[in-house]
Amino acid sequence: MSKLREECGLFGVFGAPEAATPIYRGLFSIQHRGQEGAGIVVSDGVKVRSVKGLGLVNEVVARHPIDELKGDRGIGHVRYSTTGSSRIQNVQPLVVECVDGIWAIAHNGNLVNARKLRRMYQEAGAIFQTSTDSEVLVHLLADPLYRTRPQRVARALNELEGAFAFLMMTKDCIMATRDAFGFRPLSIGRIGGGWAVASETCALVQAGATYERDVEPGELIVIDANGLHSSVFRENESGHLAQCVFELVYFARPDSRVFGYNVHNVRCAYGMKLAEEHPVEADIVVPVPDSGNSAAIGFSQRSGIPLNAGFIRNHYVGRTFIMPDADDRANGVDMKLAVLPDVVNQKRIVIVDDSIVRGTTMRKRIELLRAAGASEIHVRISCPPTMFPCVYGIDFPTTEELIAGKRDVEAIRSFLGADSLGYLSQEGLLSPFSDPRNFCCACFTGKYPVDPAGMKGKRALENSSLELGLHP
Amino acid sequence: MSKLREECGLFGVFGAPEAATPIYRGLFSIQHRGQEGAGIVVSDGVKVRSVKGLGLVNEVVARHPIDELKGDRGIGHVRYSTTGSSRIQNVQPLVVECVDGIWAIAHNGNLVNARKLRRMYQEAGAIFQTSTDSEVLVHLLADPLYRTRPQRVARALNELEGAFAFLMMTKDCIMATRDAFGFRPLSIGRIGGGWAVASETCALVQAGATYERDVEPGELIVIDANGLHSSVFRENESGHLAQCVFELVYFARPDSRVFGYNVHNVRCAYGMKLAEEHPVEADIVVPVPDSGNSAAIGFSQRSGIPLNAGFIRNHYVGRTFIMPDADDRANGVDMKLAVLPDVVNQKRIVIVDDSIVRGTTMRKRIELLRAAGASEIHVRISCPPTMFPCVYGIDFPTTEELIAGKRDVEAIRSFLGADSLGYLSQEGLLSPFSDPRNFCCACFTGKYPVDPAGMKGKRALENSSLELGLHP
Amino acid sequence: MSKLREECGLFGVFGAPEAATPIYRGLFSIQHRGQEGAGIVVSDGVKVRSVKGLGLVNEVVARHPIDELKGDRGIGHVRYSTTGSSRIQNVQPLVVECVDGIWAIAHNGNLVNARKLRRMYQEAGAIFQTSTDSEVLVHLLADPLYRTRPQRVARALNELEGAFAFLMMTKDCIMATRDAFGFRPLSIGRIGGGWAVASETCALVQAGATYERDVEPGELIVIDANGLHSSVFRENESGHLAQCVFELVYFARPDSRVFGYNVHNVRCAYGMKLAEEHPVEADIVVPVPDSGNSAAIGFSQRSGIPLNAGFIRNHYVGRTFIMPDADDRANGVDMKLAVLPDVVNQKRIVIVDDSIVRGTTMRKRIELLRAAGASEIHVRISCPPTMFPCVYGIDFPTTEELIAGKRDVEAIRSFLGADSLGYLSQEGLLSPFSDPRNFCCACFTGKYPVDPAGMKGKRALENSSLELGLHP
Amino acid sequence: MSKLREECGLFGVFGAPEAATPIYRGLFSIQHRGQEGAGIVVSDGVKVRSVKGLGLVNEVVARHPIDELKGDRGIGHVRYSTTGSSRIQNVQPLVVECVDGIWAIAHNGNLVNARKLRRMYQEAGAIFQTSTDSEVLVHLLADPLYRTRPQRVARALNELEGAFAFLMMTKDCIMATRDAFGFRPLSIGRIGGGWAVASETCALVQAGATYERDVEPGELIVIDANGLHSSVFRENESGHLAQCVFELVYFARPDSRVFGYNVHNVRCAYGMKLAEEHPVEADIVVPVPDSGNSAAIGFSQRSGIPLNAGFIRNHYVGRTFIMPDADDRANGVDMKLAVLPDVVNQKRIVIVDDSIVRGTTMRKRIELLRAAGASEIHVRISCPPTMFPCVYGIDFPTTEELIAGKRDVEAIRSFLGADSLGYLSQEGLLSPFSDPRNFCCACFTGKYPVDPAGMKGKRALENSSLELGLHP
Repeated sequence: MSKLREECGLFGVFGAPEAATPIYRGLFSIQHRGQEGAGIVVSDGVKVRSVKGLGLVNEVVARHPIDELKGDRGIGHVRYSTTGSSRIQNVQPLVVECVDGIWAIAHNGNLVNARKLRRMYQEAGAIFQTSTDSEVLVHLLADPLYRTRPQRVARALNELEGAFAFLMMTKDCIMATRDAFGFRPLSIGRIGGGWAVASETCALVQAGATYERDVEPGELIVIDANGLHSSVFRENESGHLAQCVFELVYFARPDSRVFGYNVHNVRCAYGMKLAEEHPVEADIVVPVPDSGNSAAIGFSQRSGIPLNAGFIRNHYVGRTFIMPDADDRANGVDMKLAVLPDVVNQKRIVIVDDSIVRGTTMRKRIELLRAAGASEIHVRISCPPTMFPCVYGIDFPTTEELIAGKRDVEAIRSFLGADSLGYLSQEGLLSPFSDPRNFCCACFTGKYPVDPAGMKGKRALENSSLELGLHP
Repeated sequence: MSKLREECGLFGVFGAPEAATPIYRGLFSIQHRGQEGAGIVVSDGVKVRSVKGLGLVNEVVARHPIDELKGDRGIGHVRYSTTGSSRIQNVQPLVVECVDGIWAIAHNGNLVNARKLRRMYQEAGAIFQTSTDSEVLVHLLADPLYRTRPQRVARALNELEGAFAFLMMTKDCIMATRDAFGFRPLSIGRIGGGWAVASETCALVQAGATYERDVEPGELIVIDANGLHSSVFRENESGHLAQCVFELVYFARPDSRVFGYNVHNVRCAYGMKLAEEHPVEADIVVPVPDSGNSAAIGFSQRSGIPLNAGFIRNHYVGRTFIMPDADDRANGVDMKLAVLPDVVNQKRIVIVDDSIVRGTTMRKRIELLRAAGASEIHVRISCPPTMFPCVYGIDFPTTEELIAGKRDVEAIRSFLGADSLGYLSQEGLLSPFSDPRNFCCACFTGKYPVDPAGMKGKRALENSSLELGLHP
Repeated sequence: MSKLREECGLFGVFGAPEAATPIYRGLFSIQHRGQEGAGIVVSDGVKVRSVKGLGLVNEVVARHPIDELKGDRGIGHVRYSTTGSSRIQNVQPLVVECVDGIWAIAHNGNLVNARKLRRMYQEAGAIFQTSTDSEVLVHLLADPLYRTRPQRVARALNELEGAFAFLMMTKDCIMATRDAFGFRPLSIGRIGGGWAVASETCALVQAGATYERDVEPGELIVIDANGLHSSVFRENESGHLAQCVFELVYFARPDSRVFGYNVHNVRCAYGMKLAEEHPVEADIVVPVPDSGNSAAIGFSQRSGIPLNAGFIRNHYVGRTFIMPDADDRANGVDMKLAVLPDVVNQKRIVIVDDSIVRGTTMRKRIELLRAAGASEIHVRISCPPTMFPCVYGIDFPTTEELIAGKRDVEAIRSFLGADSLGYLSQEGLLSPFSDPRNFCCACFTGKYPVDPAGMKGKRALENSSLELGLHP
Repeated sequence: MSKLREECGLFGVFGAPEAATPIYRGLFSIQHRGQEGAGIVVSDGVKVRSVKGLGLVNEVVARHPIDELKGDRGIGHVRYSTTGSSRIQNVQPLVVECVDGIWAIAHNGNLVNARKLRRMYQEAGAIFQTSTDSEVLVHLLADPLYRTRPQRVARALNELEGAFAFLMMTKDCIMATRDAFGFRPLSIGRIGGGWAVASETCALVQAGATYERDVEPGELIVIDANGLHSSVFRENESGHLAQCVFELVYFARPDSRVFGYNVHNVRCAYGMKLAEEHPVEADIVVPVPDSGNSAAIGFSQRSGIPLNAGFIRNHYVGRTFIMPDADDRANGVDMKLAVLPDVVNQKRIVIVDDSIVRGTTMRKRIELLRAAGASEIHVRISCPPTMFPCVYGIDFPTTEELIAGKRDVEAIRSFLGADSLGYLSQEGLLSPFSDPRNFCCACFTGKYPVDPAGMKGKRALENSSLELGLHP
């Protein structure tokens, strides 16, 4: 599956010489969390310097060498791709000046009361220069109602409803925080004598840091010259968390540890559970590379059906593949994945993938396998049917667009042209976890842990009349 | 002379189909007023769309075709070049959303109380995303203190001290205004059934509009679907204006009419006056092309000494000329102007130019003329010595850097290596005008019509720690 | 392994409307055969049009939309990356005009007598505009010694010694040919009512064509409006071929069929053979993705040791990854492959890869696995030690640079820091083939089927004084 | 006038450290001779290095810093702009390898027997990689018929018919030559202890060289480590030359000395002669800047009518001006030249320009002057009507396109809407010269000094089926 888009990825550093380099490495390692734009902001305690731009982080850095970004502290951000016109104003970190000096902010998640807060501040005279919901935080932070910076930050975070992991920076510190439900991941590591913070632990490793612990839900971490300081800005009143299970199903890199669980291992366990829930007689297990790789390993191990490579992935397919044809799908060729005919010919095949969004891509692949001589095709999906949109930071299609939003499993199987189709059960989904009540499964169940009513505002915001196209 | 940098140029349109095209043409015609960045913001009454970028307006438009900028109203801006790192955040028009909807703002001039206002708003919780002094206006405009938009705009403009011409836009109107002293020019024209506003009348002509009248000092023009509405937001209490004489001396294009005076004619008159004030026996009058062209015509006419072309300008020299040499000046070649040896050899020459800033360029040119055989070289400058920095929107060198700030005329002549040197007198400077008291001559006299004390703030602002480099 | 560089990939089409599109798709699918430059030349029978450029084929096409390349016939080429300055003159297809009209030529392979022929033609007055050995062919083709085109082509091909697959095009036909030893692969397919020719069959599939047969060694295929014509330009006198075994070991895509063998299946068989030749007790088999994937499957199946993902490949690493560090290797991070610590911790691991060139990359990966807690690391390589350079078209390091050129297996194991190291035997290498004598294994054995003496000339050519840098 | 396109400009250096820098400066100064492409080739006696590209020389250099071009000798070239697709293959200097080593060739002019020679060489087996007529020279130079290099060069030059100035380079020398009629200019200068050669003397000056003498018609200059050697490769049998008078009328920069005459002075003399031949009562003389500047000075001096600036040239108009309008002319605005209404209003005006090609631009300008209130408009052109195409290197429109090709003077005046129109007479054109028989005036008279019959071949060549688009 390849059609979902994570909101963002974060990486921050304090106390590492030439902080821009580990930030760049870290962002590069979580590039899968957002490909629209990237930004790095650093400080040496005196000046604040930044590069931002549309595109991948290495493209942004190619346009502006980061060795000009002097400083031992900084934060960075990668951002998801919008379908409409790209908006460089929305690329984060936001950098603003307020009475307290310069602040930079990077956000992963989605605030359900952003529109309400925006309207409230606008009525008080505030101006907004982006269409992101993250911008409300800088207004909250600048609000002179509370005198001290700790008070201001705690109060600001308390005003926010919804899902967020934030990195903030001033000249003298960086801050890291997660909402009290812990929707989005954020981890802390040590880098040399300093600190690093990242959306995924794989970024810590690739930046040369070692994982220390997660930022706790409701916790505010401040790292400055005196070290790391922790405080709680909000207690979780409900008693349980709402960690995004989709991070484990789909988003996070397999080499990350998210919410305390090793992603690859969880996916292997999903594959095993799938083999138990939906057993089938077959000759080979074929992963959809690379999204189905981990679950296919588990499925093969549990079922005893050998793994084989039925698809080859073209490593040169990227955002830049330009199709001269008006309708590429019409000609029945998949430039990204190619079938290995000698592997699948005359074989009963189990295809394993991590999800089905609209179903059209899987349908085409099944056609290609049939054309290559596959005798039976059994589809196994390592999560339940995704039926509901996410309001906490994942850019899902609407229920109407989701194939499981309007069809039952048999109808989906028929649409795909598969011989059988099995989804992981909800129980299976939560089975790897010791604390299943601490996960948000709203996209599968429709049960939203935080009232999404305000999200109508979110949609309205995106469709606002402000159509800024600042083209680099 | 080529080292001074105007702050900006403005062009606005209301009621012209495909407004982006005349805005582009207009900005292109006043490109000399700013080469760092350019922006165009338009609206069709529903959406607001913009392109902005670093570089010349045709470079910005080349990166993003303006035919996507649908709408019959809009404003545009060209911006001066900074020496340091370019800052795309500062490219105007600024576009923000406040309680009143979307506003776009373009500014020419310099506010002497910008820093004070910025600080005041920051203390009230406002955040700033640029380092321009123009951003304070959007905070003033968004201030909920006054209920109606006319009240808010009038009050906002009244808070500003210093020099300004502003264009503002909302979805339903454009606004044009000048400070009560009228420092910076702004003219209105008709374009088809609609209206155009421009920093210089040449832009009106080149955009296909016809000049109507100037925006008056202290006047606020609002143009909407009901036509043009004029009001006075502030009376000029001093009884006289402070129109920038340097627009006529140097900045404005010769085919513009500025403050009611034809620029070329004023410069011809300066040349005549120079011939009277500093007569000399010579064989030819040689303008420094193109800055000295108009005054040289006047000097030749009054003195009877024939005009000839002693210099040729290389039309391919631009911002993009890349010198491989570390120190180009060392080798005594001027890639921009070349001497015509057969014209100057054995001749007594009067060189006419519009000003001398640091003197190094003129000195080199005199060396080249001597090397080509000129027997005498008499320099005539069509304004008095520029000794004081401008605080109203022109990016002058400091007094220390200005050659006339530290040397008297004889010392300058000696530095240049000229046989004689004559500057236009202060009386000559004002002689073409029926109302000489309505001009600001602070750069020549040091008499600042509006207290520049706040400008220290301006300097501090530019040197602030916010060093944003968003590199396209 | 990722350090070897194939010379080139070819794709040609005749009789397919908008031939540039399948050529583009085909080249895109064999992009792994060359990333330095790409070119497409087409004809509609009247005009010949081309695009060529440095970079990947989609980058070249992004700079010039291929829909301007009108015509139903054409040839394309992708070219390997040089370490020195890129030379756009060398990008193929070469397009020249001679007495017979316009010819375009694309070459995969290496001619051992290129320098001799070049010198011979130069002495006769010919001029050369590239430093490729392919350019000699166009001089041979233009030679007026033989009157008819078939005579000229057959004679030209007969003059060449070494390895070659060529595509040639005139306005009215395309031609495809392989040397009589069949060093390099070339396959024919049907596309609609027309024909396609490709270095690898995967490109036929991805271009929408169906595989028909291979071009035979010593065969010249001409495809024109009258269909496909085959002739033999040279008999193979030795009675056996010299097909490049390294295509099967390393270069070709797993979904290709090369020299009649399915690449993935051959590699699986290598993995099985490796498991027999070098058995080991271990917990998991870990492929180096993606080069070791196929052999790891075979190793796992034969050994019974389960496959698991010990490495994750970052899909954003490409030619454009820019390292700010002077010495990236120093900090012990591999931005391309990341280790999954929870998979390898406390495990006895068999790493499977397809080859070891210099050994430095494998050594670093073993260090990373140890750091992640792997208890034993056994390296298995699915080919014998590569000890000799290739003179037939693969850009190998010199014997001095090849780790196996100067060290025995135990010394390599020690250098790598592995617990054991096993290479596939020469017998194992040839075991999948019914006709083992038809393969060139010179890089493993040093037995060169065609005298490489002339190659000294080749080296001299590359180091010639012609250092052209035509920078687009 | 701005619609004619010179073929090319040349600049060469021997014996100057970092030769690429003066070559760049020199080419930059003759950029007006060609804006399509530029190239610089240098050698340090061991390696030959080059940069070439489409666009202006500073654009080419911006893409590849010339400080990598090590060497004390080199040649450079700027090339005219074609209307059709740009062809990077045709950008000069051509660099080839032949038996004699590496040769680089740069050409200004047009060979009337190029097609015949090309065909002849192709029949002997030669291949051509460009569609320039210059490529025949490299085949002639490589021809082994004559043994020694001097013999080969002399024989090659003797085979050429038509107009040419050539710069040639090998590792050990540069060569400069002009055809025996001397159509195109070429001058020699001293630069430090070395030598420079340039199409125009202004380039010598701007490169830091001092003019020495012209290359003589029929002379071959060889400059190597032993100094400058002169020989005559062909005597002029006709006894008189055919120097291009259009260089003086139009092409050359006013600060150049061409064929022994100062360009600006010749144009001033043309203006004086025009004033005598076509006197008129008027208020002001207005040059079309900058092409009419010199002649207008002469006209004003002789007539006594004062010069004034009626037009202002926008210095930002260049090749990069992008018009959003489909038909810019329709709206009656000239983005390049703007009228100064206050100068021309109610005035009787003499407009002076150097030529009229199609007449449409002049017609529009006359309309703009009338709209600005000019009471009378008298056009004076400083050459006779251009009625015939040039076959010696200037890219003229066809006779059908030339307004003087199909209309008499009265009809042209009527088309332009002028009150009177006067062209310089043929006698006037030659009046500044002591040796009028030594000039080619074919574009005015139709008398071609060298039989242009072969030029049909030239046209056919350009329209050949080889449509190469190598897109950078």
